[in-house]
Amino acid sequence: MESVIGVNLPQESYEIAIASGNLAKLGDRMMSLNLGKKVLVVSNPVIFQYYGEVAIASLKEAGFEVAQITLPAGESYKTHDSLQKIYDAALENRLERSSTMVALGGGVIGDMTGFASATWLRGINFVQVPTTLLAMVDASIGGKTGVNHPQGKNLIGAFHQPREVLIDPEVLKTLPVREFRAGIAEVIKYGIIWDAELFSQMERSQYLDCLDNLDLGLLQEILTRSCQAKADVVSKDEKEAGLRAILNYGHTIGHAVESLTEYRVVNHGEAVAIGMVAAGEIAVTLQMWDKLASERQNALIQKAGLPTALPPGLDIEAIVDALSTDKKVKAGKVRFVLPTQIGAAIVTDQVPRDVIKQVLQQMSS
Amino acid sequence: MESVIGVNLPQESYEIAIASGNLAKLGDRMMSLNLGKKVLVVSNPVIFQYYGEVAIASLKEAGFEVAQITLPAGESYKTHDSLQKIYDAALENRLERSSTMVALGGGVIGDMTGFASATWLRGINFVQVPTTLLAMVDASIGGKTGVNHPQGKNLIGAFHQPREVLIDPEVLKTLPVREFRAGIAEVIKYGIIWDAELFSQMERSQYLDCLDNLDLGLLQEILTRSCQAKADVVSKDEKEAGLRAILNYGHTIGHAVESLTEYRVVNHGEAVAIGMVAAGEIAVTLQMWDKLASERQNALIQKAGLPTALPPGLDIEAIVDALSTDKKVKAGKVRFVLPTQIGAAIVTDQVPRDVIKQVLQQMSS
Repeated sequence: MESVIGVNLPQESYEIAIASGNLAKLGDRMMSLNLGKKVLVVSNPVIFQYYGEVAIASLKEAGFEVAQITLPAGESYKTHDSLQKIYDAALENRLERSSTMVALGGGVIGDMTGFASATWLRGINFVQVPTTLLAMVDASIGGKTGVNHPQGKNLIGAFHQPREVLIDPEVLKTLPVREFRAGIAEVIKYGIIWDAELFSQMERSQYLDCLDNLDLGLLQEILTRSCQAKADVVSKDEKEAGLRAILNYGHTIGHAVESLTEYRVVNHGEAVAIGMVAAGEIAVTLQMWDKLASERQNALIQKAGLPTALPPGLDIEAIVDALSTDKKVKAGKVRFVLPTQIGAAIVTDQVPRDVIKQVLQQMSS
Repeated sequence: MESVIGVNLPQESYEIAIASGNLAKLGDRMMSLNLGKKVLVVSNPVIFQYYGEVAIASLKEAGFEVAQITLPAGESYKTHDSLQKIYDAALENRLERSSTMVALGGGVIGDMTGFASATWLRGINFVQVPTTLLAMVDASIGGKTGVNHPQGKNLIGAFHQPREVLIDPEVLKTLPVREFRAGIAEVIKYGIIWDAELFSQMERSQYLDCLDNLDLGLLQEILTRSCQAKADVVSKDEKEAGLRAILNYGHTIGHAVESLTEYRVVNHGEAVAIGMVAAGEIAVTLQMWDKLASERQNALIQKAGLPTALPPGLDIEAIVDALSTDKKVKAGKVRFVLPTQIGAAIVTDQVPRDVIKQVLQQMSS
């Protein structure tokens, strides 16, 4: 099974290639992009141990000069210090404007490598090789790059599109089950906001909580349809002027929960799951969405082994306050993405503070 | 006298407005750009003392909410630490995606503020109010932003176009004479690579070494023609794929000299002056430019009170080595901009190392 999805943007277009065994084809695929000879592979130690050798052998065989650097994984390492290490490696290996940084890892590696490539020499080439389900279906597509500020996630960043996204589903075999589920949270998001058929396919599957229980055909559908959804939205609105905001479904409250628990209690996908339950309840409360659809969403979230309640001990007021420091704030108003049916959502800044608090109180455990 | 020059780019266009008294019109001009209410003015302490009050009063009168931050001036402060202070001020004042950072200062303030605005929330609005001649005719136009890496100038940066460049020649009255001359170096550059008439106008002026000796009509011509030259080149090649490289005339060796003397011995304009003398000599040696034209260039550089020899004690080998870490290196080859007549230049990577060394030896003091 192989899928190739085009991301078509005004100034630069690229492909997302999804197929088993793609990792060993990295060098060949990159050769066809007419890049300079020098490549810096950025990875984390665990992923590099599993997949570094195959990736680097493929690049060398295709004629690239390859350097590598590994950085600790995890949201708490998505900092200026890690970025500085990539810059230092770029300098040491004398990367030029025609050179390429390859991100081999999850979303943190992809975001940091993307930002480093956006800002080194005012922008060099960048290739995404995501190794987590979350990065495959979300972070690796669309050109959002960045690092965290001590007081907020992704406050420092840039839009910088990759030259290619190469996805090899085989690498998911070593993904911890909790991280697999985190990826499924974003897939459920696409089902709710964009692709009702994807939602139904997941509803029909008996299991959704780990890779071993998943039909390979469904996995390929999940990857292809999710990447297609993201590519569709990004192609229509690269710089998040309008439509792209719907991709933030579940993220408004999700980000606040991640931030307040210092990225240690829930992972990104779990936070999005909690955020989707909250946004769904808000939509039901505001009579924009029917209760049955919201129950179907929450059932799917539970089938995926994802949380539907707030982590214990979180202060409701603190969550509501945190919403106003989010990037998505406009003229002081908090924007929410709310579903109107399965497969469609709208953006609104008209959610009363009381409704947010009421829904969060219901979700307190 | 008032000039308005358009910079026309595929995705975003903007104006450079040049007129005495413009500073007091900052707020009104920005109102017409349809920006959000929040503005962060970034300046250095000296400039802010002279002009901060007028700028801020103008912004407030137009209805903006204004915050301010001052950072030390000078190339050695163009660092990540200064950038972090701008980010912190952005966070503290809760800047949003529709907010604007205003750079009120010279090239260092402009470059850092530009980079901060390029990377805060993945890009917010940015307005340039350059207060040095160098920043007016060069750095403030074209969207190059960045900070220095400890081992090289502008290695970290982004392309981010301002929404407007507002130039008030009045502010040059407080500019130290050495900095005025540094700006004239870039003006001479435009004469050589682009605008023979500008070159002749400066040749005809009896003095060129300080503002007090300058005819006000000539000053307006210098500002307008220089900004027009930069706008022409940038409009044709925003991301420096080709033509824009000619703006680096004098900068190849200039950057190496600045870097090796740790930005403390010569300022940017002086380094460019030295670099233009060197590039001119190289062009003459390679029989691409006639000796007489190069002598006219050097005479103009001297009339402006700018250096034509290397700073004492610089090692020629070290300069040649430093050339290869420059951003402008492509496939290991050093690119030079060489004049072919007054008003025209080409880019080449075919300058033999021996010729570079020979010319630098002639220029050793």
